[in-house]
Amino acid sequence: MDSDEQYERGLAALQQAANGAAQRLLDALADVSPELSYRSVAWSYGDLYVRPQLARRDRELLTLGILTGLGAADAQLEVHVNGALNAGLTPSEIVEALLQSVVYCGVPRAVNATLVAKKVFAERNLLPVRPTTAG
Amino acid sequence: MDSDEQYERGLAALQQAANGAAQRLLDALADVSPELSYRSVAWSYGDLYVRPQLARRDRELLTLGILTGLGAADAQLEVHVNGALNAGLTPSEIVEALLQSVVYCGVPRAVNATLVAKKVFAERNLLPVRPTTAG
Amino acid sequence: MDSDEQYERGLAALQQAANGAAQRLLDALADVSPELSYRSVAWSYGDLYVRPQLARRDRELLTLGILTGLGAADAQLEVHVNGALNAGLTPSEIVEALLQSVVYCGVPRAVNATLVAKKVFAERNLLPVRPTTAG
Amino acid sequence: MDSDEQYERGLAALQQAANGAAQRLLDALADVSPELSYRSVAWSYGDLYVRPQLARRDRELLTLGILTGLGAADAQLEVHVNGALNAGLTPSEIVEALLQSVVYCGVPRAVNATLVAKKVFAERNLLPVRPTTAG
Amino acid sequence: MDSDEQYERGLAALQQAANGAAQRLLDALADVSPELSYRSVAWSYGDLYVRPQLARRDRELLTLGILTGLGAADAQLEVHVNGALNAGLTPSEIVEALLQSVVYCGVPRAVNATLVAKKVFAERNLLPVRPTTAG
Amino acid sequence: MDSDEQYERGLAALQQAANGAAQRLLDALADVSPELSYRSVAWSYGDLYVRPQLARRDRELLTLGILTGLGAADAQLEVHVNGALNAGLTPSEIVEALLQSVVYCGVPRAVNATLVAKKVFAERNLLPVRPTTAG
Repeated sequence: MDSDEQYERGLAALQQAANGAAQRLLDALADVSPELSYRSVAWSYGDLYVRPQLARRDRELLTLGILTGLGAADAQLEVHVNGALNAGLTPSEIVEALLQSVVYCGVPRAVNATLVAKKVFAERNLLPVRPTTAG
Repeated sequence: MDSDEQYERGLAALQQAANGAAQRLLDALADVSPELSYRSVAWSYGDLYVRPQLARRDRELLTLGILTGLGAADAQLEVHVNGALNAGLTPSEIVEALLQSVVYCGVPRAVNATLVAKKVFAERNLLPVRPTTAG
Repeated sequence: MDSDEQYERGLAALQQAANGAAQRLLDALADVSPELSYRSVAWSYGDLYVRPQLARRDRELLTLGILTGLGAADAQLEVHVNGALNAGLTPSEIVEALLQSVVYCGVPRAVNATLVAKKVFAERNLLPVRPTTAG
Repeated sequence: MDSDEQYERGLAALQQAANGAAQRLLDALADVSPELSYRSVAWSYGDLYVRPQLARRDRELLTLGILTGLGAADAQLEVHVNGALNAGLTPSEIVEALLQSVVYCGVPRAVNATLVAKKVFAERNLLPVRPTTAG
Repeated sequence: MDSDEQYERGLAALQQAANGAAQRLLDALADVSPELSYRSVAWSYGDLYVRPQLARRDRELLTLGILTGLGAADAQLEVHVNGALNAGLTPSEIVEALLQSVVYCGVPRAVNATLVAKKVFAERNLLPVRPTTAG
Repeated sequence: MDSDEQYERGLAALQQAANGAAQRLLDALADVSPELSYRSVAWSYGDLYVRPQLARRDRELLTLGILTGLGAADAQLEVHVNGALNAGLTPSEIVEALLQSVVYCGVPRAVNATLVAKKVFAERNLLPVRPTTAG
């Protein structure tokens, strides 16, 4: 498969998987670095996400972990909280994943990621997340 | 001591130690992840901060260092610049601590943390920080 | 549940979930910071990992992502590659998860994490990982 | 050369090399940590940037790489995208440098840095960056 | 151009540009994640490094900056100190680049990267680096 | 004060404050980047550490926090665990400081820093650190 096919396939997958948040990032890059948009799409949703070794839901869960551990990745977290919801993860599962991160990368990154998730949940009328237990 | 006691103790300590900045973070988490609020409070102010091995002032100084080195932790820095002031550190000592960080984690993190401190100082009418020497 | 119960529960879960790698870390901490061992165990396997909101397999997959994104966490990666295998993830799924991280945190962290996984696979006679496709 | 000479030389070099973005940072620090301003200027443009071992253009290219790899350094990136333009790098070269970073530090840091560059290009009427090829 | 061509082109370029350090990494990945090797080569030397917007020397200088800023990337630094030498950068220029990083990402990352460079210089009989001035 | 005086003063202070670990780093840099040694010493112990705004003990405590939050800084942590002991911090206080970091930057960085401290304590016959309480 050549790179253009990979890009086209990735773009279609991205538009199905994610949503306005991803499109806004691609639009913002259009007049400065279409090359970066092209690779971001071709390499993620065009190449890796379609591989059968992991399910889409697993991949989105994993990406939430990678981005939270990395830090300073709010725009991508916004894309992938949307991607996670679209892959079938519930708000409660997403919040639980970010809760778990606190042990490995600490309170600031866990809280920050949770507040990005909250923003996405609010846009999609998913608040309040039904609290599971207070402790 | 069970976890609920730890949480209650931590919440009381936090409300005394820090201030509106901490409360705003807890409020923001209330409808998305009370579980994360609970652990942030129970594990920090409820468990570790009350241990006698280090004084409160030492702990707040240390936390400024950890957060500055970590980076991308503005909301927590805001909480702990307040916590540092409330534990008796002066604005000049706080600024000096952030100045020292420049050697270990570089200009961007030191400058960013200093501008978060400035925001807190402004809210508490502590500006200008009396310059000690220009060099 | 009080903290000691949480620790005991966590220790039992950890010993089942992970293996020698985790025990070696706890042993290494024993004469310098049993307090840190205690919290690492009580907060992860004692508190969060037993919550029903995410399956053990999901949690271990997620942790691989968090640690890879964070970087400089080889000892914990070693523990959790073992934990992931013990939770039912296959070597191929683990390698695929680390492959995906390359898009979000770059080649150095993805390669480094993959070489830690290789070390664990070698100890458990799981090499070579059956290549799925060359591209 | 003593430190004050280094600072004066650095300030002159900075004002020539960079622009309003640098001055805004120095102004923001003036009432909270002139000591940090002083060292930021003396150690970078006053000491290192004037050394003959690397050309100014090389240094600004390199700094874009360091800041992108570091992450969470938007204000300094803004200064140094300006510095890079003033040292003769074209928008296309700057965008290409940030594109290359995607392989080493991942999509989030590359995209974020590119959007900071876009902001500077917009202020200097340098948009759209003439796309070189779509792939 | 399809992905396999990109990989073949990248592999040829890598073998010319870098050296044993790169080959050792590819060999180490061979039985665990040839997929990761494939993408590391195809995306860097196969895709980006051959683009005409930046010279090879510029790209290697930039990569030293990205990796130093990122941290915890010793194996890749070793590859790219070799790549930088092979692209025509002198040991003195490489050391100067790492010296400059101290202002932006601090002493630990600058020192660590410099010691990786020293290891490569030693293997290639390039020590001592002729000191330029003591200050 | 000019830079050479600052360097000489810093070197004297460093040799008093720290120990063999610092000297080993300076020696390792001698044939590759004496310029980096020079600045590391002049900017830290020569310039900042002698400022009266914070006591030496406070500075060493703070540096432990910065380096732990930053991550991937083992060689400097080794220098500053020694520096902290020499400034009067007890092993128990140092261990407690690293324990506190777990809340802010997570288990991997806290454990790693604690194991670096253990190495220094072992060299100085300070093990076992008298455990204060198990929880």
